[in-house]
Amino acid sequence: MTRKELTHQIRDKQSFLCVGLDPDLTRLPRFFLDFEDPVFEFNKRVIDATKDFCVAYKPNVAFYEALGTGGWQALAKTLDYIPETHFTIADAKRGDIGNTSRLYATTFFQTFDFDAVTIAPYMGEDSVAPFLEFKDRWVILLALTSNAGSSDFQFYKNDVGKPLFQHVIERAMTWGDSNNLMFVVGATQGTHLRQIRTIAPDHFLLVPGVGAQGGDLSTVVTEGKNQDIGLLVNASRSIIFAGTEAHDFDHLVSSAAKSLQSEMSILLL
Amino acid sequence: MTRKELTHQIRDKQSFLCVGLDPDLTRLPRFFLDFEDPVFEFNKRVIDATKDFCVAYKPNVAFYEALGTGGWQALAKTLDYIPETHFTIADAKRGDIGNTSRLYATTFFQTFDFDAVTIAPYMGEDSVAPFLEFKDRWVILLALTSNAGSSDFQFYKNDVGKPLFQHVIERAMTWGDSNNLMFVVGATQGTHLRQIRTIAPDHFLLVPGVGAQGGDLSTVVTEGKNQDIGLLVNASRSIIFAGTEAHDFDHLVSSAAKSLQSEMSILLL
Repeated sequence: MTRKELTHQIRDKQSFLCVGLDPDLTRLPRFFLDFEDPVFEFNKRVIDATKDFCVAYKPNVAFYEALGTGGWQALAKTLDYIPETHFTIADAKRGDIGNTSRLYATTFFQTFDFDAVTIAPYMGEDSVAPFLEFKDRWVILLALTSNAGSSDFQFYKNDVGKPLFQHVIERAMTWGDSNNLMFVVGATQGTHLRQIRTIAPDHFLLVPGVGAQGGDLSTVVTEGKNQDIGLLVNASRSIIFAGTEAHDFDHLVSSAAKSLQSEMSILLL
Repeated sequence: MTRKELTHQIRDKQSFLCVGLDPDLTRLPRFFLDFEDPVFEFNKRVIDATKDFCVAYKPNVAFYEALGTGGWQALAKTLDYIPETHFTIADAKRGDIGNTSRLYATTFFQTFDFDAVTIAPYMGEDSVAPFLEFKDRWVILLALTSNAGSSDFQFYKNDVGKPLFQHVIERAMTWGDSNNLMFVVGATQGTHLRQIRTIAPDHFLLVPGVGAQGGDLSTVVTEGKNQDIGLLVNASRSIIFAGTEAHDFDHLVSSAAKSLQSEMSILLL
Protein backbone atom coordinates (compact mmCIF):
# COMPACT_ATOMS: atom_id res chain seq x y z
CA MET A 1 0.00 0.00 0.00
CA THR A 2 1.28 3.48 -0.84
CA ARG A 3 1.55 6.38 1.57
CA LYS A 4 -1.14 8.20 -0.40
CA GLU A 5 -3.59 5.31 -0.09
CA LEU A 6 -2.92 4.98 3.63
CA THR A 7 -3.37 8.70 4.23
CA HIS A 8 -6.56 8.70 2.19
CA GLN A 9 -7.99 5.92 4.33
CA ILE A 10 -7.08 7.70 7.54
CA ARG A 11 -8.81 10.90 6.43
CA ASP A 12 -11.80 9.01 5.12
CA LYS A 13 -12.36 7.05 8.33
CA GLN A 14 -11.15 9.78 10.68
CA SER A 15 -9.11 7.04 12.29
CA PHE A 16 -5.44 6.21 12.59
CA LEU A 17 -6.14 3.16 14.71
CA CYS A 18 -4.13 -0.02 14.24
CA VAL A 19 -5.49 -3.09 16.01
CA GLY A 20 -2.85 -5.47 17.37
CA LEU A 21 -3.92 -9.05 16.71
CA ASP A 22 -2.06 -10.71 19.60
CA PRO A 23 -4.15 -13.79 20.38
CA ASP A 24 -2.54 -14.84 23.65
CA LEU A 25 -4.04 -18.31 24.19
CA THR A 26 -4.08 -17.88 27.96
CA ARG A 27 -6.33 -14.80 27.60
CA LEU A 28 -8.61 -15.97 24.79
CA PRO A 29 -12.26 -16.10 25.93
CA ARG A 30 -12.98 -19.74 26.72
CA PHE A 31 -15.79 -20.12 24.22
CA PHE A 32 -13.29 -19.84 21.38
CA LEU A 33 -11.55 -23.01 22.54
CA ASP A 34 -14.46 -25.08 21.14
CA PHE A 35 -13.55 -24.07 17.60
CA GLU A 36 -11.18 -26.12 15.46
CA ASP A 37 -8.84 -23.12 15.06
CA PRO A 38 -9.50 -20.90 18.12
CA VAL A 39 -6.90 -18.31 17.12
CA PHE A 40 -8.27 -17.76 13.63
CA GLU A 41 -11.87 -17.74 14.88
CA PHE A 42 -10.93 -15.15 17.51
CA ASN A 43 -9.13 -12.96 14.96
CA LYS A 44 -12.02 -13.24 12.49
CA ARG A 45 -14.48 -12.01 15.09
CA VAL A 46 -12.12 -9.21 16.16
CA ILE A 47 -11.62 -8.13 12.54
CA ASP A 48 -15.37 -8.13 11.82
CA ALA A 49 -16.00 -6.10 14.95
CA THR A 50 -13.26 -3.51 14.38
CA LYS A 51 -12.71 -3.08 10.64
CA ASP A 52 -14.97 -0.03 10.36
CA PHE A 53 -13.02 1.81 13.03
CA CYS A 54 -9.39 1.04 12.20
CA VAL A 55 -7.10 1.40 9.18
CA ALA A 56 -4.49 -1.23 10.02
CA TYR A 57 -3.94 -4.60 11.67
CA LYS A 58 -0.72 -5.68 13.35
CA PRO A 59 -0.35 -9.35 14.29
CA ASN A 60 2.65 -9.84 16.59
CA VAL A 61 4.32 -12.90 15.11
CA ALA A 62 5.40 -14.22 18.53
CA PHE A 63 1.84 -15.22 19.38
CA TYR A 64 1.57 -17.37 16.25
CA GLU A 65 5.12 -18.76 16.31
CA ALA A 66 4.50 -19.97 19.89
CA LEU A 67 1.79 -22.30 18.56
CA GLY A 68 4.01 -24.14 16.11
CA THR A 69 2.92 -24.90 12.55
CA GLY A 70 -0.76 -24.45 13.46
CA GLY A 71 0.04 -20.91 14.52
CA TRP A 72 1.59 -20.07 11.15
CA GLN A 73 -1.49 -21.44 9.43
CA ALA A 74 -3.68 -19.26 11.64
CA LEU A 75 -1.51 -16.26 10.74
CA ALA A 76 -1.87 -16.97 7.00
CA LYS A 77 -5.65 -17.38 7.29
CA THR A 78 -5.89 -14.19 9.36
CA LEU A 79 -3.92 -12.20 6.80
CA ASP A 80 -6.21 -13.52 4.04
CA TYR A 81 -9.24 -12.49 6.04
CA ILE A 82 -8.15 -8.87 6.60
CA PRO A 83 -9.94 -6.65 4.04
CA GLU A 84 -7.79 -5.39 1.12
CA THR A 85 -8.47 -1.84 2.27
CA HIS A 86 -6.51 -2.27 5.51
CA PHE A 87 -2.77 -1.81 6.01
CA THR A 88 -1.12 -4.97 7.41
CA ILE A 89 1.95 -5.05 9.64
CA ALA A 90 3.91 -8.16 10.62
CA ASP A 91 5.23 -7.23 14.05
CA ALA A 92 8.27 -9.45 13.81
CA LYS A 93 11.18 -7.23 14.95
CA ARG A 94 13.53 -9.12 12.65
CA GLY A 95 17.05 -8.12 11.58
CA ASP A 96 20.02 -10.22 10.48
CA ILE A 97 23.03 -10.07 8.14
CA GLY A 98 22.15 -9.05 4.57
CA ASN A 99 21.59 -12.43 2.92
CA THR A 100 19.46 -13.59 5.86
CA SER A 101 17.41 -10.39 6.07
CA ARG A 102 16.66 -10.90 2.38
CA LEU A 103 15.05 -14.22 3.30
CA TYR A 104 13.00 -12.65 6.06
CA ALA A 105 11.84 -10.00 3.58
CA THR A 106 10.76 -12.74 1.17
CA THR A 107 8.90 -14.48 3.97
CA PHE A 108 6.86 -11.49 5.05
CA PHE A 109 6.38 -9.73 1.70
CA GLN A 110 6.02 -12.74 -0.63
CA THR A 111 5.28 -16.02 1.22
CA PHE A 112 2.94 -13.86 3.28
CA ASP A 113 1.72 -10.62 1.72
CA PHE A 114 2.17 -8.03 4.47
CA ASP A 115 2.42 -4.32 3.67
CA ALA A 116 5.00 -3.76 6.40
CA VAL A 117 7.39 -5.49 8.82
CA THR A 118 8.83 -4.18 12.07
CA ILE A 119 12.64 -4.34 12.14
CA ALA A 120 15.23 -4.06 14.94
CA PRO A 121 18.07 -1.68 13.99
CA TYR A 122 21.02 -3.07 15.98
CA MET A 123 22.74 -4.80 13.02
CA GLY A 124 22.65 -1.71 10.81
CA GLU A 125 22.08 -0.94 7.15
CA ASP A 126 22.57 -4.31 5.47
CA SER A 127 20.05 -5.84 7.88
CA VAL A 128 17.40 -3.29 6.87
CA ALA A 129 18.11 -2.58 3.18
CA PRO A 130 16.75 -5.86 1.73
CA PHE A 131 13.28 -5.00 3.06
CA LEU A 132 13.41 -1.55 1.43
CA GLU A 133 13.90 -3.06 -2.02
CA PHE A 134 10.27 -4.20 -2.23
CA LYS A 135 8.04 -1.66 -4.01
CA ASP A 136 5.14 -0.27 -1.97
CA ARG A 137 6.20 -2.26 1.10
CA TRP A 138 7.36 -0.71 4.34
CA VAL A 139 10.02 -1.07 6.99
CA ILE A 140 8.86 0.03 10.42
CA LEU A 141 12.09 0.47 12.36
CA LEU A 142 12.28 0.34 16.15
CA ALA A 143 13.42 3.76 17.30
CA LEU A 144 12.10 4.50 20.81
CA THR A 145 10.03 1.64 22.17
CA SER A 146 7.26 1.70 24.77
CA ASN A 147 8.75 -0.77 27.29
CA ALA A 148 10.78 -0.20 30.46
CA GLY A 149 13.92 -1.60 28.80
CA SER A 150 13.88 1.23 26.26
CA SER A 151 15.99 3.21 28.73
CA ASP A 152 18.83 0.66 28.70
CA PHE A 153 20.28 1.43 25.26
CA GLN A 154 17.99 3.72 23.27
CA PHE A 155 19.00 6.75 25.35
CA TYR A 156 22.75 6.02 25.13
CA LYS A 157 24.20 9.45 24.38
CA ASN A 158 27.22 10.48 22.31
CA ASP A 159 29.65 13.28 23.22
CA VAL A 160 27.20 16.01 22.20
CA GLY A 161 24.30 14.40 24.04
CA LYS A 162 22.52 12.88 21.06
CA PRO A 163 20.69 9.70 22.12
CA LEU A 164 21.00 6.47 20.14
CA PHE A 165 17.35 6.51 19.06
CA GLN A 166 17.94 9.86 17.31
CA HIS A 167 21.07 8.52 15.61
CA VAL A 168 19.08 5.46 14.48
CA ILE A 169 16.38 7.68 12.96
CA GLU A 170 18.86 9.98 11.23
CA ARG A 171 20.91 7.12 9.76
CA ALA A 172 17.83 5.21 8.63
CA MET A 173 16.49 8.30 6.85
CA THR A 174 19.49 7.97 4.50
CA TRP A 175 18.42 4.38 3.64
CA GLY A 176 14.72 4.89 2.99
CA ASP A 177 12.25 7.76 2.71
CA SER A 178 8.80 8.64 3.94
CA ASN A 179 7.27 6.35 1.30
CA ASN A 180 8.83 3.13 2.60
CA LEU A 181 10.08 3.77 6.12
CA MET A 182 8.22 4.40 9.38
CA PHE A 183 9.49 4.50 12.96
CA VAL A 184 8.20 2.86 16.12
CA VAL A 185 7.84 5.42 18.91
CA GLY A 186 6.12 4.34 22.13
CA ALA A 187 3.12 6.34 23.34
CA THR A 188 4.74 6.21 26.76
CA GLN A 189 7.61 8.40 25.44
CA GLY A 190 5.46 11.57 25.20
CA THR A 191 8.12 14.23 25.68
CA HIS A 192 10.39 12.68 23.07
CA LEU A 193 7.69 12.36 20.44
CA ARG A 194 7.91 16.06 19.60
CA GLN A 195 11.69 15.78 19.29
CA ILE A 196 11.31 12.84 16.90
CA ARG A 197 8.68 14.69 14.87
CA THR A 198 11.22 17.50 14.43
CA ILE A 199 13.88 15.08 13.18
CA ALA A 200 11.50 13.19 10.90
CA PRO A 201 8.72 15.61 9.96
CA ASP A 202 7.32 13.55 7.06
CA HIS A 203 7.62 9.96 8.22
CA PHE A 204 4.76 7.93 9.58
CA LEU A 205 5.19 6.90 13.21
CA LEU A 206 3.77 3.64 14.53
CA VAL A 207 2.86 4.32 18.13
CA PRO A 208 2.21 1.38 20.46
CA GLY A 209 1.59 1.69 24.16
CA VAL A 210 -1.83 3.39 24.25
CA GLY A 211 -4.24 1.40 26.43
CA ALA A 212 -2.83 -1.46 28.49
CA GLN A 213 0.67 0.11 28.55
CA GLY A 214 -0.62 3.48 29.77
CA GLY A 215 0.22 5.96 26.95
CA ASP A 216 -2.06 8.97 26.41
CA LEU A 217 -3.72 9.44 23.00
CA SER A 218 -4.17 13.21 23.10
CA THR A 219 -0.49 13.72 23.95
CA VAL A 220 0.45 11.47 21.03
CA VAL A 221 -1.63 13.57 18.64
CA THR A 222 -0.46 16.92 20.02
CA GLU A 223 3.20 15.94 19.90
CA GLY A 224 3.26 13.60 16.92
CA LYS A 225 0.76 14.62 14.24
CA ASN A 226 2.07 16.09 10.99
CA GLN A 227 0.28 17.64 7.97
CA ASP A 228 -0.67 14.18 6.67
CA ILE A 229 -1.55 13.05 10.20
CA GLY A 230 1.39 10.64 9.92
CA LEU A 231 0.41 8.44 12.83
CA LEU A 232 -0.70 4.87 13.30
CA VAL A 233 -1.63 4.29 16.93
CA ASN A 234 -1.75 0.68 17.97
CA ALA A 235 -3.94 -0.81 20.67
CA SER A 236 -4.02 -4.54 21.28
CA ARG A 237 -5.13 -5.90 24.65
CA SER A 238 -7.54 -3.05 25.48
CA ILE A 239 -9.54 -3.85 22.34
CA ILE A 240 -9.20 -7.54 21.56
CA PHE A 241 -9.75 -8.69 25.15
CA ALA A 242 -12.62 -6.25 25.81
CA GLY A 243 -15.15 -9.10 25.71
CA THR A 244 -15.05 -12.43 27.50
CA GLU A 245 -18.47 -14.00 26.85
CA ALA A 246 -19.95 -15.24 23.59
CA HIS A 247 -23.18 -13.21 23.77
CA ASP A 248 -21.58 -9.74 23.90
CA PHE A 249 -18.02 -10.35 22.63
CA ASP A 250 -18.50 -8.65 19.28
CA HIS A 251 -20.35 -5.73 20.79
CA LEU A 252 -17.71 -5.04 23.46
CA VAL A 253 -14.75 -5.38 21.09
CA SER A 254 -16.47 -3.17 18.57
CA SER A 255 -17.26 -0.57 21.24
CA ALA A 256 -13.66 -0.49 22.44
CA ALA A 257 -12.43 0.19 18.90
CA LYS A 258 -15.21 2.68 18.17
CA SER A 259 -14.45 4.58 21.35
CA LEU A 260 -10.80 5.04 20.36
CA GLN A 261 -11.84 6.03 16.84
CA SER A 262 -14.25 8.63 18.22
CA GLU A 263 -11.52 10.05 20.39
CA MET A 264 -9.26 10.17 17.34
CA SER A 265 -11.83 11.92 15.18
CA ILE A 266 -12.26 14.63 17.83
CA LEU A 267 -8.49 15.07 18.19
CA LEU A 268 -8.23 15.49 14.41
CA LEU A 269 -10.70 18.41 14.34
CA MET B 1 23.11 -27.93 28.74
CA THR B 2 25.36 -26.55 31.49
CA ARG B 3 28.56 -24.62 30.99
CA LYS B 4 30.50 -27.51 32.54
CA GLU B 5 29.03 -30.03 30.10
CA LEU B 6 29.75 -27.79 27.13
CA THR B 7 33.32 -27.16 28.23
CA HIS B 8 33.85 -30.87 28.81
CA GLN B 9 32.72 -31.65 25.28
CA ILE B 10 34.99 -29.00 23.80
CA ARG B 11 38.03 -30.39 25.62
CA ASP B 12 37.08 -33.94 24.80
CA LYS B 13 36.70 -33.32 21.07
CA GLN B 14 39.38 -30.63 20.84
CA SER B 15 36.80 -28.66 18.93
CA PHE B 16 34.79 -25.51 19.54
CA LEU B 17 33.14 -25.72 16.14
CA CYS B 18 29.49 -24.82 15.70
CA VAL B 19 27.96 -25.77 12.36
CA GLY B 20 25.37 -23.33 11.01
CA LEU B 21 22.46 -25.25 9.53
CA ASP B 22 21.30 -22.62 7.03
CA PRO B 23 19.71 -24.66 4.24
CA ASP B 24 19.29 -21.94 1.62
CA LEU B 25 17.04 -23.67 -0.95
CA THR B 26 18.71 -21.86 -3.87
CA ARG B 27 22.08 -23.36 -2.87
CA LEU B 28 21.00 -26.87 -1.90
CA PRO B 29 22.65 -29.52 -4.10
CA ARG B 30 20.04 -30.48 -6.72
CA PHE B 31 19.96 -34.14 -5.79
CA PHE B 32 18.28 -33.25 -2.49
CA LEU B 33 15.29 -31.85 -4.35
CA ASP B 34 14.15 -35.41 -5.15
CA PHE B 35 13.46 -36.09 -1.47
CA GLU B 36 10.08 -35.44 0.10
CA ASP B 37 11.64 -33.02 2.60
CA PRO B 38 14.83 -31.71 0.94
CA VAL B 39 15.74 -29.43 3.86
CA PHE B 40 15.55 -32.14 6.50
CA GLU B 41 17.36 -34.66 4.27
CA PHE B 42 20.13 -32.12 3.65
CA ASN B 43 20.46 -31.33 7.37
CA LYS B 44 20.48 -35.02 8.27
CA ARG B 45 23.35 -35.69 5.90
CA VAL B 46 25.23 -32.61 7.14
CA ILE B 47 24.76 -33.66 10.77
CA ASP B 48 25.93 -37.22 10.09
CA ALA B 49 28.98 -35.90 8.28
CA THR B 50 29.99 -33.31 10.87
CA LYS B 51 28.88 -34.51 14.31
CA ASP B 52 32.27 -35.98 15.21
CA PHE B 53 34.03 -32.69 14.55
CA CYS B 54 31.70 -30.11 16.10
CA VAL B 55 30.12 -29.49 19.49
CA ALA B 56 27.16 -27.34 18.46
CA TYR B 57 24.60 -26.75 15.72
CA LYS B 58 23.01 -23.41 14.95
CA PRO B 59 20.03 -23.37 12.58
CA ASN B 60 19.24 -19.80 11.48
CA VAL B 61 15.48 -19.66 11.81
CA ALA B 62 15.09 -17.37 8.76
CA PHE B 63 15.87 -20.24 6.41
CA TYR B 64 13.06 -22.35 7.85
CA GLU B 65 10.54 -19.55 8.34
CA ALA B 66 10.93 -18.64 4.65
CA LEU B 67 9.51 -22.05 3.72
CA GLY B 68 6.25 -21.63 5.62
CA THR B 69 4.81 -24.39 7.78
CA GLY B 70 6.90 -27.06 6.02
CA GLY B 71 9.99 -25.17 7.09
CA TRP B 72 8.99 -25.26 10.76
CA GLN B 73 8.39 -28.99 10.49
CA ALA B 74 11.86 -29.42 8.97
CA LEU B 75 13.32 -27.38 11.84
CA ALA B 76 11.57 -29.58 14.43
CA LYS B 77 12.75 -32.78 12.73
CA THR B 78 16.29 -31.38 12.46
CA LEU B 79 16.39 -30.52 16.14
CA ASP B 80 15.19 -34.03 17.02
CA TYR B 81 17.90 -35.50 14.84
CA ILE B 82 20.81 -33.59 16.44
CA PRO B 83 22.53 -35.90 18.97
CA GLU B 84 21.82 -35.18 22.66
CA THR B 85 25.52 -34.52 23.14
CA HIS B 86 25.49 -31.40 20.99
CA PHE B 87 24.65 -27.85 22.04
CA THR B 88 21.77 -26.40 19.99
CA ILE B 89 21.29 -22.73 19.15
CA ALA B 90 18.20 -21.18 17.56
CA ASP B 91 19.67 -18.26 15.64
CA ALA B 92 16.51 -16.18 15.83
CA LYS B 93 17.72 -12.72 16.92
CA ARG B 94 14.41 -12.12 18.71
CA GLY B 95 13.59 -9.41 21.25
CA ASP B 96 10.28 -7.78 22.16
CA ILE B 97 8.47 -6.26 25.15
CA GLY B 98 8.48 -8.48 28.24
CA ASN B 99 5.22 -10.40 27.82
CA THR B 100 6.02 -11.09 24.15
CA SER B 101 9.63 -12.12 24.79
CA ARG B 102 8.23 -14.59 27.31
CA LEU B 103 6.28 -16.20 24.45
CA TYR B 104 9.36 -16.37 22.24
CA ALA B 105 11.23 -18.01 25.11
CA THR B 106 8.47 -20.60 25.44
CA THR B 107 8.62 -21.23 21.70
CA PHE B 108 12.34 -21.91 21.54
CA PHE B 109 12.90 -23.54 24.94
CA GLN B 110 9.65 -25.53 25.31
CA THR B 111 7.74 -25.95 22.00
CA PHE B 112 11.18 -26.56 20.56
CA ASP B 113 13.90 -27.72 22.93
CA PHE B 114 16.89 -25.54 22.06
CA ASP B 115 19.73 -24.96 24.53
CA ALA B 116 20.16 -21.36 23.43
CA VAL B 117 18.59 -18.52 21.46
CA THR B 118 20.27 -15.49 19.91
CA ILE B 119 18.69 -12.21 21.06
CA ALA B 120 18.91 -8.62 19.80
CA PRO B 121 19.56 -6.14 22.63
CA TYR B 122 17.92 -2.94 21.35
CA MET B 123 14.78 -3.18 23.54
CA GLY B 124 16.72 -3.69 26.77
CA GLU B 125 16.36 -5.74 29.93
CA ASP B 126 12.71 -6.78 29.87
CA SER B 127 13.16 -8.11 26.33
CA VAL B 128 16.02 -10.37 27.47
CA ALA B 129 15.12 -11.35 31.05
CA PRO B 130 12.31 -13.85 30.23
CA PHE B 131 14.82 -16.03 28.38
CA LEU B 132 17.19 -16.03 31.36
CA GLU B 133 14.54 -17.52 33.65
CA PHE B 134 14.87 -20.97 32.06
CA LYS B 135 17.29 -23.22 33.94
CA ASP B 136 20.29 -24.50 31.96
CA ARG B 137 19.21 -22.52 28.89
CA TRP B 138 21.18 -19.71 27.34
CA VAL B 139 20.76 -16.25 25.92
CA ILE B 140 23.31 -15.41 23.25
CA LEU B 141 23.12 -11.64 22.97
CA LEU B 142 24.22 -9.73 19.87
CA ALA B 143 27.14 -7.54 20.91
CA LEU B 144 29.45 -6.89 17.95
CA THR B 145 28.23 -8.58 14.79
CA SER B 146 30.21 -9.72 11.76
CA ASN B 147 28.38 -7.76 9.06
CA ALA B 148 29.16 -4.41 7.42
CA GLY B 149 26.20 -2.75 9.17
CA SER B 150 27.79 -3.43 12.57
CA SER B 151 29.54 -0.07 12.20
CA ASP B 152 26.25 1.86 12.00
CA PHE B 153 25.20 1.65 15.65
CA GLN B 154 27.37 -0.80 17.58
CA PHE B 155 30.31 1.64 17.65
CA TYR B 156 28.17 4.61 18.75
CA LYS B 157 30.33 6.18 21.47
CA ASN B 158 29.37 8.01 24.65
CA ASP B 159 31.18 11.08 26.05
CA VAL B 160 34.11 9.02 27.34
CA GLY B 161 34.44 7.07 24.08
CA LYS B 162 32.79 3.85 25.21
CA PRO B 163 31.13 2.15 22.23
CA LEU B 164 27.54 0.87 22.45
CA PHE B 165 28.60 -2.79 22.11
CA GLN B 166 30.66 -2.45 25.30
CA HIS B 167 27.76 -0.80 27.12
CA VAL B 168 25.49 -3.65 25.94
CA ILE B 169 27.90 -6.25 27.30
CA GLU B 170 28.37 -4.47 30.63
CA ARG B 171 24.63 -3.95 31.19
CA ALA B 172 23.76 -7.51 30.17
CA MET B 173 26.34 -8.89 32.61
CA THR B 174 24.12 -7.48 35.38
CA TRP B 175 21.14 -9.51 34.05
CA GLY B 176 22.77 -12.90 33.55
CA ASP B 177 26.07 -14.60 34.30
CA SER B 178 28.56 -16.83 32.54
CA ASN B 179 26.29 -19.82 33.12
CA ASN B 180 23.36 -18.51 31.07
CA LEU B 181 24.63 -15.65 28.93
CA MET B 182 26.97 -15.60 25.93
CA PHE B 183 27.78 -12.80 23.48
CA VAL B 184 27.93 -12.76 19.69
CA VAL B 185 31.21 -11.26 18.49
CA GLY B 186 32.03 -11.44 14.79
CA ALA B 187 35.30 -13.06 13.71
CA THR B 188 35.72 -10.09 11.40
CA GLN B 189 36.08 -7.81 14.47
CA GLY B 190 39.53 -9.16 15.44
CA THR B 191 40.99 -6.13 17.20
CA HIS B 192 37.90 -5.70 19.38
CA LEU B 193 37.76 -9.32 20.44
CA ARG B 194 40.58 -8.81 22.94
CA GLN B 195 38.81 -5.74 24.35
CA ILE B 196 35.60 -7.77 24.78
CA ARG B 197 37.52 -10.62 26.44
CA THR B 198 38.82 -8.08 28.96
CA ILE B 199 35.30 -6.84 29.74
CA ALA B 200 33.81 -10.34 29.92
CA PRO B 201 36.64 -12.72 30.88
CA ASP B 202 34.41 -15.68 31.80
CA HIS B 203 31.58 -15.57 29.28
CA PHE B 204 31.39 -17.79 26.25
CA LEU B 205 31.57 -15.93 22.95
CA LEU B 206 29.74 -17.17 19.86
CA VAL B 207 31.90 -16.13 16.93
CA PRO B 208 30.39 -16.17 13.44
CA GLY B 209 32.15 -14.93 10.34
CA VAL B 210 34.94 -17.49 9.91
CA GLY B 211 34.87 -18.93 6.40
CA ALA B 212 32.57 -17.30 3.82
CA GLN B 213 32.62 -13.96 5.68
CA GLY B 214 36.43 -13.84 5.86
CA GLY B 215 37.28 -13.97 9.59
CA ASP B 216 40.56 -15.58 10.69
CA LEU B 217 40.45 -18.52 13.12
CA SER B 218 43.89 -18.11 14.66
CA THR B 219 43.23 -14.45 15.46
CA VAL B 220 39.95 -15.44 17.09
CA VAL B 221 41.75 -17.95 19.32
CA THR B 222 44.65 -15.64 20.17
CA GLU B 223 42.37 -12.73 21.06
CA GLY B 224 39.32 -14.53 22.39
CA LYS B 225 40.25 -17.75 24.22
CA ASN B 226 39.91 -17.86 28.01
CA GLN B 227 40.91 -20.50 30.60
CA ASP B 228 37.86 -22.62 29.72
CA ILE B 229 38.42 -21.95 26.00
CA GLY B 230 35.10 -20.02 26.12
CA LEU B 231 34.57 -19.92 22.36
CA LEU B 232 32.07 -21.35 19.93
CA VAL B 233 33.17 -20.57 16.38
CA ASN B 234 30.43 -20.89 13.81
CA ALA B 235 30.90 -21.81 10.15
CA SER B 236 27.93 -22.33 7.88
CA ARG B 237 28.32 -21.98 4.12
CA SER B 238 31.96 -23.11 3.96
CA ILE B 239 30.96 -26.46 5.49
CA ILE B 240 27.39 -27.23 4.49
CA PHE B 241 27.83 -26.27 0.85
CA ALA B 242 31.25 -27.95 0.47
CA GLY B 243 29.73 -30.74 -1.63
CA THR B 244 27.40 -30.45 -4.61
CA GLU B 245 27.13 -34.03 -5.98
CA ALA B 246 25.53 -37.07 -4.40
CA HIS B 247 28.56 -39.35 -4.66
CA ASP B 248 30.99 -37.26 -2.62
CA PHE B 249 28.69 -34.89 -0.68
CA ASP B 250 29.18 -36.56 2.71
CA HIS B 251 32.92 -36.86 2.21
CA LEU B 252 33.42 -33.21 1.24
CA VAL B 253 31.20 -31.82 4.01
CA SER B 254 32.91 -34.07 6.53
CA SER B 255 36.35 -32.98 5.31
CA ALA B 256 35.48 -29.30 5.58
CA ALA B 257 34.38 -29.76 9.20
CA LYS B 258 37.34 -32.01 10.01
CA SER B 259 39.76 -29.51 8.57
CA LEU B 260 38.44 -26.71 10.82
CA GLN B 261 38.49 -29.07 13.81
CA SER B 262 42.12 -29.99 13.10
CA GLU B 263 43.05 -26.34 12.90
CA MET B 264 41.27 -25.81 16.23
CA SER B 265 43.01 -28.70 17.93
CA ILE B 266 46.41 -27.30 16.91
CA LEU B 267 45.47 -23.79 18.09
CA LEU B 268 44.46 -25.27 21.45
CA LEU B 269 47.89 -26.83 22.06
